[in-house]
Amino acid sequence: MKGIILSLARRRKSIRRYKNKAFSVEKILYAIRAAIEAPSGANQQPWRFIIVDDPQIKIRIREICEKGEKEFYAKVSGELKEWLIKRGFTWKKPFLTEAPYLIVVLTNMTKLYAVESTWLSIGYLLLALEEEGLASLTYTPPNPKDVMTLLGVPSNFELQAIIPVGLPAEDKQKESRKGLHEVVYHNVWGSKMNIASTTSP
Amino acid sequence: MKGIILSLARRRKSIRRYKNKAFSVEKILYAIRAAIEAPSGANQQPWRFIIVDDPQIKIRIREICEKGEKEFYAKVSGELKEWLIKRGFTWKKPFLTEAPYLIVVLTNMTKLYAVESTWLSIGYLLLALEEEGLASLTYTPPNPKDVMTLLGVPSNFELQAIIPVGLPAEDKQKESRKGLHEVVYHNVWGSKMNIASTTSP
Repeated sequence: MKGIILSLARRRKSIRRYKNKAFSVEKILYAIRAAIEAPSGANQQPWRFIIVDDPQIKIRIREICEKGEKEFYAKVSGELKEWLIKRGFTWKKPFLTEAPYLIVVLTNMTKLYAVESTWLSIGYLLLALEEEGLASLTYTPPNPKDVMTLLGVPSNFELQAIIPVGLPAEDKQKESRKGLHEVVYHNVWGSKMNIASTTSP
Repeated sequence: MKGIILSLARRRKSIRRYKNKAFSVEKILYAIRAAIEAPSGANQQPWRFIIVDDPQIKIRIREICEKGEKEFYAKVSGELKEWLIKRGFTWKKPFLTEAPYLIVVLTNMTKLYAVESTWLSIGYLLLALEEEGLASLTYTPPNPKDVMTLLGVPSNFELQAIIPVGLPAEDKQKESRKGLHEVVYHNVWGSKMNIASTTSP
């Protein structure tokens, strides 16, 4: 199984439009089974996952998030605003109702390294979804507490991401990545590794 | 390649003792190649990786971390103290010099969702290391700034983890995980999914 993680990692890209095409929830559960194998601070497993497939709840989540997004877009500025415009992003978040499933990921903030552990598990989750042939997005709403209120989440938890999952309805290129030599140092900060001589698998 | 992510995720466990057995740095680079394919806030790729294989620098890192750990262990209390004692953990961190490589993971705190994105990429990294047959640990020192000073890391970065990588020199059971039904809800908080009827692959 040589090189599979790298090939899944390279294939996986963030998708914002989804086909309205049903599939078995078992594929979602498969990915969560992988996610909960992640290490966590003192093995506290701070993560919780709400699988949302109820169309009415998805509509409410979308309404709440788009309200927050409108406020966010009204005040965003600088480099981030330019980046958003260049990509054609707006306050509209159709993927929240288009995708057959949303995985709402929460973490128990009273646990050690709760945020870190939960995002590490999201790494496992995304690769498992990709393996199942499913597209995803780690969407972070500007007003997570409003979504938590809708879903009845206790206040010691925080919403980390809403992950729409489905078949892609857009054909986009994966955003480019920096070269390895730009992000890897050898022994101390700023000291380059000899990477040129190695070839990627 | 059905079920590979889950099987790697299940196989991978945190390892604290390593064999002093050299291997090609290309295996480390393979895993980082996967890690940098992770999504990040506004594709800012806030992560940086310092691969440490210089024995003198590993010794210094260990000295610095163990100094911080001694202070931590002197004041730790309650449930966490019990958990640490039960597992036989002490201030000693031999893996920082035993492992052939340390991957020091840093994130640029001026970037959007820097911590979240970087830990997601660590999820990719751990699975890729596991695929390469390499054990790892996401070690978080109590005094990360002292390690950053040693390595010359700019102050807009924060150290997220020091990940020793090598062949395991301990035979331990993976820490158990909660059942899927304990961490997954359906549509709203507290509503159980019907998971009993599904079987894990």
